[in-house]
Amino acid sequence: MSQRAGGLVGASHPRLDSIDKVTGTTCYAGDLKRPGLLYSRLVLSSEAHARIEMIDVEDALRVAGVVAVLTAADLPIVAEGPFRHNQPLARGEVVFAGQPVAMVVAESEASAEDGAEAVFVNYSPLRPVLDVERAMAPGSPLARLEQPGEALGGVEALHAGVGGGEGDAPEEDLSGNVLGQRFYRHGDVAGTLARSAAVVARRFRTSWVHQGYLEPQTATAWVEPNGALVVSTSTAGAFYTRDQLSKLFGLPAAKIRVKAETLGGAFGGKLLIVEPLVAGAALVLRRSVRLAFTRTEDFAAASPAPASVIELQIGALATGELTALDARIIFDRGTNAEWGYEEIVPTLIAGPYRWSAYSIRAYGVQTNRVGLGAYRAPSAPPAAFALESLIDELAQALGADPLDLRLGNVIDEGDAGVDGNAWPRVGARACLQRLRAHPLWSKRHGLPEGEGIGLAVATWPGANDPAAAACRLESDGGLTVITGVADMTGTENAFAVIAAETFGVPFEQVTVSMADTGSAPYAPVSAGSKITYTVGRAVEQAAADAREQLIRIAADELEVAPDDLEIVDGVIRPVGVPAGGLTVADIARRLFDFGSRHEPVEGHGRTAQTSLAPSTAAHLAHIRVDPDTGSVDVLSWIVAQDVGRALNLAMVEGQMRGGVAQGLGWALSEELIHDATGQLLTGSFLDYTIPSADAVPHIETLIVEVPAPDGPFGAKGMGEASVIAVPGAIANAIAAATGARMDELPMTAPRVWKALSCRRST
Amino acid sequence: MSQRAGGLVGASHPRLDSIDKVTGTTCYAGDLKRPGLLYSRLVLSSEAHARIEMIDVEDALRVAGVVAVLTAADLPIVAEGPFRHNQPLARGEVVFAGQPVAMVVAESEASAEDGAEAVFVNYSPLRPVLDVERAMAPGSPLARLEQPGEALGGVEALHAGVGGGEGDAPEEDLSGNVLGQRFYRHGDVAGTLARSAAVVARRFRTSWVHQGYLEPQTATAWVEPNGALVVSTSTAGAFYTRDQLSKLFGLPAAKIRVKAETLGGAFGGKLLIVEPLVAGAALVLRRSVRLAFTRTEDFAAASPAPASVIELQIGALATGELTALDARIIFDRGTNAEWGYEEIVPTLIAGPYRWSAYSIRAYGVQTNRVGLGAYRAPSAPPAAFALESLIDELAQALGADPLDLRLGNVIDEGDAGVDGNAWPRVGARACLQRLRAHPLWSKRHGLPEGEGIGLAVATWPGANDPAAAACRLESDGGLTVITGVADMTGTENAFAVIAAETFGVPFEQVTVSMADTGSAPYAPVSAGSKITYTVGRAVEQAAADAREQLIRIAADELEVAPDDLEIVDGVIRPVGVPAGGLTVADIARRLFDFGSRHEPVEGHGRTAQTSLAPSTAAHLAHIRVDPDTGSVDVLSWIVAQDVGRALNLAMVEGQMRGGVAQGLGWALSEELIHDATGQLLTGSFLDYTIPSADAVPHIETLIVEVPAPDGPFGAKGMGEASVIAVPGAIANAIAAATGARMDELPMTAPRVWKALSCRRST
Repeated sequence: MSQRAGGLVGASHPRLDSIDKVTGTTCYAGDLKRPGLLYSRLVLSSEAHARIEMIDVEDALRVAGVVAVLTAADLPIVAEGPFRHNQPLARGEVVFAGQPVAMVVAESEASAEDGAEAVFVNYSPLRPVLDVERAMAPGSPLARLEQPGEALGGVEALHAGVGGGEGDAPEEDLSGNVLGQRFYRHGDVAGTLARSAAVVARRFRTSWVHQGYLEPQTATAWVEPNGALVVSTSTAGAFYTRDQLSKLFGLPAAKIRVKAETLGGAFGGKLLIVEPLVAGAALVLRRSVRLAFTRTEDFAAASPAPASVIELQIGALATGELTALDARIIFDRGTNAEWGYEEIVPTLIAGPYRWSAYSIRAYGVQTNRVGLGAYRAPSAPPAAFALESLIDELAQALGADPLDLRLGNVIDEGDAGVDGNAWPRVGARACLQRLRAHPLWSKRHGLPEGEGIGLAVATWPGANDPAAAACRLESDGGLTVITGVADMTGTENAFAVIAAETFGVPFEQVTVSMADTGSAPYAPVSAGSKITYTVGRAVEQAAADAREQLIRIAADELEVAPDDLEIVDGVIRPVGVPAGGLTVADIARRLFDFGSRHEPVEGHGRTAQTSLAPSTAAHLAHIRVDPDTGSVDVLSWIVAQDVGRALNLAMVEGQMRGGVAQGLGWALSEELIHDATGQLLTGSFLDYTIPSADAVPHIETLIVEVPAPDGPFGAKGMGEASVIAVPGAIANAIAAATGARMDELPMTAPRVWKALSCRRST
Repeated sequence: MSQRAGGLVGASHPRLDSIDKVTGTTCYAGDLKRPGLLYSRLVLSSEAHARIEMIDVEDALRVAGVVAVLTAADLPIVAEGPFRHNQPLARGEVVFAGQPVAMVVAESEASAEDGAEAVFVNYSPLRPVLDVERAMAPGSPLARLEQPGEALGGVEALHAGVGGGEGDAPEEDLSGNVLGQRFYRHGDVAGTLARSAAVVARRFRTSWVHQGYLEPQTATAWVEPNGALVVSTSTAGAFYTRDQLSKLFGLPAAKIRVKAETLGGAFGGKLLIVEPLVAGAALVLRRSVRLAFTRTEDFAAASPAPASVIELQIGALATGELTALDARIIFDRGTNAEWGYEEIVPTLIAGPYRWSAYSIRAYGVQTNRVGLGAYRAPSAPPAAFALESLIDELAQALGADPLDLRLGNVIDEGDAGVDGNAWPRVGARACLQRLRAHPLWSKRHGLPEGEGIGLAVATWPGANDPAAAACRLESDGGLTVITGVADMTGTENAFAVIAAETFGVPFEQVTVSMADTGSAPYAPVSAGSKITYTVGRAVEQAAADAREQLIRIAADELEVAPDDLEIVDGVIRPVGVPAGGLTVADIARRLFDFGSRHEPVEGHGRTAQTSLAPSTAAHLAHIRVDPDTGSVDVLSWIVAQDVGRALNLAMVEGQMRGGVAQGLGWALSEELIHDATGQLLTGSFLDYTIPSADAVPHIETLIVEVPAPDGPFGAKGMGEASVIAVPGAIANAIAAATGARMDELPMTAPRVWKALSCRRST
């Protein structure tokens, strides 16, 4: 961690991209202009499960402006994979309603659409598998008849730094739809629960939800005259996309250039959905081809987050000490045969608490729904909804204060986690303490009728991945950070602060240059709250390297020892002598003028973080329930989050507020609904309700800083923790307000009304 | 210098860009497609020297398709400079016929051309200054009435690593047209000459010549929605262009991105000619604007190499020891007020020989001709033409063998140069020895009537500049060299060899990625034979760094000591154990699969060469002179060149052959001719004669390798030396064939015929 501090870290800096965004000048992937650009529209499967008997493209080819109609056999694919995105177009069998079956490429969007409507596909329907629990049972029909090939691999590790749960499987008779299982077991769970003073249990359900990014999936691909494939896309991972396309099409990685364009939201959901399609079409047609999903296509054919069923039981002693946890978790995988949330959830279901015994079983089950993708803290919101609800019930059963109960059991650095690893430094206790001191917490008793205040805690393990970055001094004294990151959450702002603070120049002197894979330092996928922690660390190293280079040059020019110089606010000066000195711009100009005694100043950082920096948050929700309708008004919100170190205060607060807003949708309204045949009923923002601005209350942010030992200036990733506990906090607030316990997400007005009715009737 | 050698260095490797070039798929600057692209055409001054009284653009604006007509006042320029390229459009005064006065921007090339023809400029003619010697005299009218502002600077150091000659100026009465002077003086020149056994003297003239690149100057500029200026251009220096545009338009360097596109020839002449024009127009119009010179515009308004007048006198003792040299050199600068060849020529006029006394005076004089630019070994071909001619005359006067005379006086490492610096390791002697051993040299007596064999020696000091490069391992085991170099001469092929050899992988596993200034490691202008010596060295460092990183990872994986591993032919194996080992591709795949214990493998190199590696060549020309017409047929050619180390044999031989071919044009046919009013008479390839394929003989290449201590694998720059001595060798061959001494370039048939006539008549 850097020892120097010029006051930039922790302050609020204007977001570098804000003027472009508010003035509408930002170029998104769909704004790229290419001469001779072709547009495409997909023919999506109308069936959730069927054999494709025939695809008739003749009529489509006769539509004016249609250039080609491509089916699976037309794409130059050399690698098969079970992950449906590696089969850009269905072969033989369709496994979800919305699966791309053919791609119509045309001179205009309108022609492509007309062409897609003219494609006739003859299906032999197969029985769709839609109920995730019944799908597990032996004898269930399979959601996919054809055996998938070997996976390309590497996806599961993208999203979180945890995994495991690879204990011995219990003897169970399961169908072939169960694609993944994870188990953790420690101690005598049944005996421990039997000896507990209080035990609570509940079965929870959560729904499929969509990431709700405003910009639909969009990519454009073309082939340079020399055969190089170029893809400009709304992706969270340029290098990842390049490497997967390289395997898929059998091209050397260096023959593919992927540019991650400015994202209009992603939240985990923008990875390799549209790129294989446009890349395949461009390779076949040798033209520039764009695919921009319509909103409906994005709901039907992208990669939303899956539904779950969580059966959870926990106990505690009369002293308030938590004892045992027994969890059985089923996550729908839809048609994603490559990875599932069961790989991540086992550690998350235990929360930030100590358990003396536990049994955790997690299953990933294929069904005939769209393949799952990541969504901000994959599996964590359902897990926290279940666990935090039961912790509150347990407090009630014990007559304990729910915050005190949590504080009495919250883990600290060194405590063993359910995966057997010791917890690194972690801020959950500090977050809870911040809430306990907050006036809203003491207001929770004596609220007006129908109001309640609920508490819930979020934990995200953090993630890591190799990363690199460069930091170059320009001839006019500007400092350029060069990165291959897809900026999903404003991380460029964090990089600018890190570089400015480390190098010793004003924030305004730093530019962040987002390069494509042709020349960028390697960057991992923007996922799992790891970019600031990994690439940010590489930026810090790169800036420190550049600073040292410049100081050595200045020392040589000034004939003093390098150790006697420092760079403060853009001025290189003798240590501790504020007057005098040379500006960085002066030296930079000389570097390129004198004729060359000095090497260019270009710093580099390469990191492979092996530590994890978990981020935690504690939320307080103040709500009012309308007893007649069941609708929930959120009156105010407090979130205390440990961010390690706030690099750019305004950005950190924005992330926290955005996380809460997004969590409100997950908690109260968002749900992808399929009918009994697997057809999506909620394919637009009219049917799929994300919170509008008037549904989001004032959100008070309390910044907790428990520095991450390996993070840049102590910072840790903070994108996920702010969303996780929102459903749990609302559920607990509803219970506080009404006594009714919710067990299903989203907690829509009808569901709340029903819970109130059940309560009234019991 | 690397100690390892896998046999790649010194072999011939297929040129990486050859398939694209021969199949016509290479994209040059003019092939870039931009939606909504505007085209432009310049209004060039019809006068060599005049005041602009009025520019009437009304008719032009009425031409269909014309979008704008820009004059100097319209461009958002904040910096004034004397270098005419910093005044993209003339202000108030025009100083050469062909100077851009206005720029018509239109929807098509045709509209732009029609518009340009409709612009009416009213000039008040001023007296043009065209005779460079008369221009020097006190009282001469000035070629430019308006005082130029302060220069942007930095140009003069681009082309050669020498300079100086800044001794005390002799008392001389000179006009204000003399913009630059350089002097070297040592010993008693007059006395030494008086004591010499033989003294020869001659006055030489050389002409303006054009670089003759096939691709005319072309650039396209646009402004990104966020205000960033992007320039795609046929330039020899992306970073240089960016930095100059930054000063010219007052934009931060980081707000400008320059992409050096594949060059269709440059030879020193492609620097900042068209970029200020398109950048200025794009900044004003906020549209994409292209300017592609026509051939005539390129002859009239680009930056050819200047004419010279060289008065030279040298002497020797009867023993053959060279004694003194007295030189007075005038180079025309045209309207280039920023730099001139007089800054480089003083050391070159002395050749690779020892002199006990010398007086060298060099002058740069402005005239009303186009501003000079660099051309392959600026000032060296005229200097060698003069010096090598006189050395032969001196041998004749002494009755000495001309090769032995040279060998007896050629410098070796440590000898003092005329600039006072000791010569570094230099291969001139070795080159001469190679020619002496060649059968053609012994054939020189007893040739048929009209045939002759001529010898001449070339020296180029080399150049240096800071440079950087990166070398990245891809997930499929490919190695990518990342550079910001404009590849003028196939240097990417040298980089690939350097990286492959240093890292230990096959040549085919390396890709060279040419990045723009947004993300590339810093690279200097491709000029002065410095790219291989400076950037190549950085590539070597970067590949060695990457290799060390990978070996450390492999050692960790294999649990052996890094020192026990080597990488040979793409396999990492225990030192000296050819069987077994892991391929680089295997390890690379694991790096990105295992989940991240290892940092990305990205090596970096930064260099600031302070040494120079002079390159030398000795040429033998075998020619036949037609006594009736004076035309010269070149029958065969031998060039022995010290390249330090041939990195890619085929490329090195190609450079040598190309240099000779280009030198033939300079020697025999090429000449930009202006009439008495300063109008260019040779504005097309019909009037300006470059050698066609049938005029180029078989060229035998003899590779001499005197390693450069600081060069990559001992390599030195080798682009210039092969062109320099061609005119001198032909002049000496003509003298050998006919006894006639040529004193003017080009040695056209009429001039040779005249020299023969004079000789016959004396």
